Amino acid sequence: MSRGEDELLAWLRSRPGTELLGDDAARLPAAPGKVWIVTTDSQIAGVHVPPELDPALLARRLLRVNLSDLAASGAEPAYALVAVSAPPGFAHRRLFDALLAACAEAGVRLAGGDLARSPVLTLTLTLLGTRPADAPVLSRKGARPGDALWAGATLGESAAGQRLLARGARAVPSVRGPRVTLAAELRRPRALAEAARRAVVRHLEPRLQLELGAWLGSRERAAAIDLSDGLARDLPRLARESGVGAEVEADLLPFSEGFEGLCAALGEEPIDLALGGGEDYCLLFALPENEPPPGRFECARIGRVTEAERLVLVRSGRRQSWPETGWDHLQPSG
Amino acid sequence: MSRGEDELLAWLRSRPGTELLGDDAARLPAAPGKVWIVTTDSQIAGVHVPPELDPALLARRLLRVNLSDLAASGAEPAYALVAVSAPPGFAHRRLFDALLAACAEAGVRLAGGDLARSPVLTLTLTLLGTRPADAPVLSRKGARPGDALWAGATLGESAAGQRLLARGARAVPSVRGPRVTLAAELRRPRALAEAARRAVVRHLEPRLQLELGAWLGSRERAAAIDLSDGLARDLPRLARESGVGAEVEADLLPFSEGFEGLCAALGEEPIDLALGGGEDYCLLFALPENEPPPGRFECARIGRVTEAERLVLVRSGRRQSWPETGWDHLQPSG
Repeated sequence: MSRGEDELLAWLRSRPGTELLGDDAARLPAAPGKVWIVTTDSQIAGVHVPPELDPALLARRLLRVNLSDLAASGAEPAYALVAVSAPPGFAHRRLFDALLAACAEAGVRLAGGDLARSPVLTLTLTLLGTRPADAPVLSRKGARPGDALWAGATLGESAAGQRLLARGARAVPSVRGPRVTLAAELRRPRALAEAARRAVVRHLEPRLQLELGAWLGSRERAAAIDLSDGLARDLPRLARESGVGAEVEADLLPFSEGFEGLCAALGEEPIDLALGGGEDYCLLFALPENEPPPGRFECARIGRVTEAERLVLVRSGRRQSWPETGWDHLQPSG
Repeated sequence: MSRGEDELLAWLRSRPGTELLGDDAARLPAAPGKVWIVTTDSQIAGVHVPPELDPALLARRLLRVNLSDLAASGAEPAYALVAVSAPPGFAHRRLFDALLAACAEAGVRLAGGDLARSPVLTLTLTLLGTRPADAPVLSRKGARPGDALWAGATLGESAAGQRLLARGARAVPSVRGPRVTLAAELRRPRALAEAARRAVVRHLEPRLQLELGAWLGSRERAAAIDLSDGLARDLPRLARESGVGAEVEADLLPFSEGFEGLCAALGEEPIDLALGGGEDYCLLFALPENEPPPGRFECARIGRVTEAERLVLVRSGRRQSWPETGWDHLQPSG
């Protein structure tokens, strides 16, 4: 009596962090004094990541892209539900082993899920986090003219990593994170190879910005958005919700070590990846000018919030109109 | 500046019931005295429904299969998050129009989502409902020996509808529900055609069992499970969680009007569809013998809960071992 689904569920329920599984729906423990913050995001093999990517790496990425949305709300992660639609023979246990380990690291318990057959591996995670009910709301709406505009991490590196994977870089999981093998032409010089490996890792394992989000959430006033579609697409969203404009200084955009050399090897302009590459999965945020984030977060000031509802890119001292680039899931051309 | 994703989101936010959209994650309003019940389920074109099914019908089905899980927990539906992974050119607005209308009917507000490109249309809905914190827990665990075992609606009809769709039946949405066109050989006699149309509708629009679930949730003791993979698979799950056995009388399995004639036309045994067809999306529940559900719910008593952890099917007076049939998403042969 080999019943795949029930066997998998029994195995899952024997693992720590899955005590809420086993019913049609999960009853979440009460969280007095807290409100719930919820978000959902998918990862599709062949769309977000190469089709043959190890399920363990896909699982880690799935959680992190969702944690990034919670970070932008200043929430503390608590529970996840995951829908796994996969082709016959898919290594479900490999996926869940990695997902449960990543959830444990982030303080997340698995509260439900769904298993289905599908010709295309599609994972959808819903993440529930909490915020103290009396804490200020952190959202896209809090930016005011005169605020400083910040990036929570370097930009464009994830997009470079995506291009490296498309050109034949491969990654396998290891205890110290993804181990990357590059295509032959990128293996030297050594500094280039190291920048390339870091870019692939950055693409596969987005930075955790939860502590930064929690710090922003403790400010009296702040605005934050998760940079998922690229600064060029996501800054307008933050500005629109806050009813403000912004000026970004191209020279201030933060690049990782060796990023410009890597871009040269890839035939890409660094600023194009930083503005429109997408999937940075770090925070873009606005704060009053005199309240910079603590140095430990390694954020970069990239511009300022303005009165006029207009976005400007200042490049070599010249003011340019805002680039219409970035990732749009409904438009192939972006 | 045609930006598909932002335009769609702006349109969505102009619709009622979407006030929580617009940020990376949604902050749910506090629900004092309540606990949250959460569930997630996917619908994949070509897997759960025919690949060419109208997105409006798919949206309605998506919500109802999730409502069925909430019903089994006695929860009152409140919020949904939906991930839509769709091929280029997909009619997103048609999908969301239908989904929002169905949500409004069920008292559900859309609290978030995700849009992605995919070669296969895949929808994943996460549904959040509430229960009074001091109400009894309704789950799979509450069955006790001596209880009566009930089905919340007729069985097998949805599976017959699935087979009709596979044989060329087509459905389009209308204000009064799906309008069904049958393959030529099933259009007469008229009683057969009517039973066939009802079966297709039942497959596409699972019965709402929320009121029944709420009533069960108000009992001092009850057990319930959503019949999604067929009685043959789901009764063992309920029995295992409760640590009990069960005896089901084949003669008591409830069939819809004209179901047996429809099965004859389809070359199927009624009992096979009732036990293993799957996707009934109605409740299977156990209650103390002297506490039957009110007649308005039109439930059918199908057997009883027993002491021994063993399942028995009583057929024409003979006790048979429990059939190993039903739907398993990880095993093609079921």
